[in-house]
Amino acid sequence: MAKNAFYAQSGGVTAVINASACGVIETARQHPDKIANVYAGRNGIIGALTEDLIYTSKESDADIAALKNTPSGGFGSCRFKLKSLEDNKAEYERLIEVFKAHDIGYFFYNGGGDSADTCYKVSQLSEKMGFPVQAIHVPKTVDNDLPITDNCPGFGSVAKYIAVSALEASYDVRSMAKTSTKIFVLEVMGRHAGWIAAAGGLIEDYGIPVVVLFPEVEFDQDKFMAQVKAKVEEHGYCTIVVSEGTHWPDGRFLAEQGTRDSFGHAQLGGAAPVVANMIKDALGYKFHWAVADYLQRAARHLASESDVEQAYALGAKAVEFAIEGHNSIMPTVDRKSNNPYKWEIGQAPLSEVANVEKMMPMDYITDDGFGITQACKDYLYPLIKGEAYPPYDDNGMPNYVTLKLESIAKKLPDFDL
Amino acid sequence: MAKNAFYAQSGGVTAVINASACGVIETARQHPDKIANVYAGRNGIIGALTEDLIYTSKESDADIAALKNTPSGGFGSCRFKLKSLEDNKAEYERLIEVFKAHDIGYFFYNGGGDSADTCYKVSQLSEKMGFPVQAIHVPKTVDNDLPITDNCPGFGSVAKYIAVSALEASYDVRSMAKTSTKIFVLEVMGRHAGWIAAAGGLIEDYGIPVVVLFPEVEFDQDKFMAQVKAKVEEHGYCTIVVSEGTHWPDGRFLAEQGTRDSFGHAQLGGAAPVVANMIKDALGYKFHWAVADYLQRAARHLASESDVEQAYALGAKAVEFAIEGHNSIMPTVDRKSNNPYKWEIGQAPLSEVANVEKMMPMDYITDDGFGITQACKDYLYPLIKGEAYPPYDDNGMPNYVTLKLESIAKKLPDFDL
Repeated sequence: MAKNAFYAQSGGVTAVINASACGVIETARQHPDKIANVYAGRNGIIGALTEDLIYTSKESDADIAALKNTPSGGFGSCRFKLKSLEDNKAEYERLIEVFKAHDIGYFFYNGGGDSADTCYKVSQLSEKMGFPVQAIHVPKTVDNDLPITDNCPGFGSVAKYIAVSALEASYDVRSMAKTSTKIFVLEVMGRHAGWIAAAGGLIEDYGIPVVVLFPEVEFDQDKFMAQVKAKVEEHGYCTIVVSEGTHWPDGRFLAEQGTRDSFGHAQLGGAAPVVANMIKDALGYKFHWAVADYLQRAARHLASESDVEQAYALGAKAVEFAIEGHNSIMPTVDRKSNNPYKWEIGQAPLSEVANVEKMMPMDYITDDGFGITQACKDYLYPLIKGEAYPPYDDNGMPNYVTLKLESIAKKLPDFDL
Repeated sequence: MAKNAFYAQSGGVTAVINASACGVIETARQHPDKIANVYAGRNGIIGALTEDLIYTSKESDADIAALKNTPSGGFGSCRFKLKSLEDNKAEYERLIEVFKAHDIGYFFYNGGGDSADTCYKVSQLSEKMGFPVQAIHVPKTVDNDLPITDNCPGFGSVAKYIAVSALEASYDVRSMAKTSTKIFVLEVMGRHAGWIAAAGGLIEDYGIPVVVLFPEVEFDQDKFMAQVKAKVEEHGYCTIVVSEGTHWPDGRFLAEQGTRDSFGHAQLGGAAPVVANMIKDALGYKFHWAVADYLQRAARHLASESDVEQAYALGAKAVEFAIEGHNSIMPTVDRKSNNPYKWEIGQAPLSEVANVEKMMPMDYITDDGFGITQACKDYLYPLIKGEAYPPYDDNGMPNYVTLKLESIAKKLPDFDL
């Protein structure tokens, strides 16, 4: 007998998380005998806790298909980490009550490490509570830090955006360096891991003098200045890609420079202006700097085709796995070869995914700490391969979809978060 | 008898200035009876003054064609304003000596207001000095401030990049606003004019609550906070597009907030973090901010098709005008209709272009000072219309060209800049 499915988006959204949603919903629609409706959590797991369930059956096939081309979280996401089972069992019990009330037998949770953990706990507890729910985690995170899977959807598109943007800005600086700007600093995301910064390192292959600052490498100001000076003296200019997580040996982020505004308030800046001003003070070079912030993770206009395809396939396969009776797993990207790039969808048990963080291998960083190795390039290029442009309207703007997002009727009493 | 032509790129480069170079060189190559060689200034006009002339005939047809898809200044540009004729006649005389030494009868100068002025003076002085050079100015500036022409190449692509990026980041914030970020601030270029900021205002048509801060409107903190608060209360989030030129009534830029680093040095930040922190302090909303800087003017990956076509056509027509005997003019974009968008290339005398700055019409800004009017939208949409993607390689990176840039032999003594 067909049961309903629940789908939710978790944590920071990406350019392709909606492609996974599209994969889940389109595949579920092909199996009405197994899955009656997909309900989506409004603003992620909060939607389940508050019983605010979006009735995706009301969305047209065309609108669901358009999700594949639309960045952001079409159903809303949230930063809300469920506490441990011991600390707040009530939250997990509430989830399962809501699932029971709406005859939900499948739970597709689309997120990073925290949501993998939640997904795992739901599958365990639902079993114990006598209402077994098949919980499948669909990977997503620009941080690229989930284990077992070759990569995480969202990361490849950020990597492409950063590599292309850094290349373009470097061409600009190269044009101007004779009389004007010699230094361009681009700040990228990645508080704990340098995966995104590493993508900036790819432009070395395109003739650009680039220095990368990773969170994995303690910042050494003298060594850095020497590196920048050498590049400018050789090439006339230099590009610096700095991770927001770059920090001093004592752990302080570069971005926390103790700056104060005219009222004496601590001022939150970014790492990029700090690095740029540091170079100006020490070497006198004229600079420009940019902070990409959300632009990088939302840039569906420059998504990687690999990334879009994998995001979709992981969502679709999650549903197929569920229909086949699997539980407590995460579909994974398994890389078969680099050149030609071949990959398949595999699976990993959530017990091995939950609470495991994959770090960037240290042999991906060059010995001097300022660049990436060939092994890293071999890993990265397939992930940024191919373009998957969204359609555009007559104005010249992308055709991104905004869904209707109708809720189904509630059946349970309110629940305070 | 065929003469040589000199081409130079001036000032800040753009995503499409090379498309104009492509138009100039490809068209010149079609007229070997009139134009023997195109010599390009290495790093702009400095290349002429120092007699460092790039022999573009050594570049393959394929590489010249690839300029149409390559951002930045392929021959190098410079920020070097020739002084007035009275203050430094020697510079103008040197230019004409170099032109004479290399039999240069055509001068194509690709830039903004300053270069239009230089171009005008060269045409006047060369006549007086008995070596008449046909001087044609090819318009280029993301500032969009040249008179007579409907718009300036480079602007349309920045406008498209800002409109699309602001839309994408707004979708992201909309997804997260329930529990996390409610404010996204995007800082854009435009120290004196709000053309680029205005492009951010287009996302209002796509359902996004947006507040635009223009250099044309004195910053009123209370009115701004009230506007942001109202948007967040209605929509749950708000996007702010702030021009780098936004300033207080006393003329100080928002970016100059008197911030000091831990050593007491004045810290150069940006307007975006200042605005974001101001909102946080007053209203408590969680924010993210981005500074697009060079990314916006280098973003050939998202160039406007209108812009690329016009940049090319203006370069091509400059050569045709020269061959027809015109002198001291600038080809212009003449808009014929908005819908369907139709345009032609016209011409303007440099005497009417030099030293005239076109401001954004005040009726393009809404009465409250925080948005754009329908007239502004009608002006902007045609300029961002169409996509003109560069080709990509197998790695997933754009195929941008780097030219050989061989110099011709010098014939004159050195000249000190």
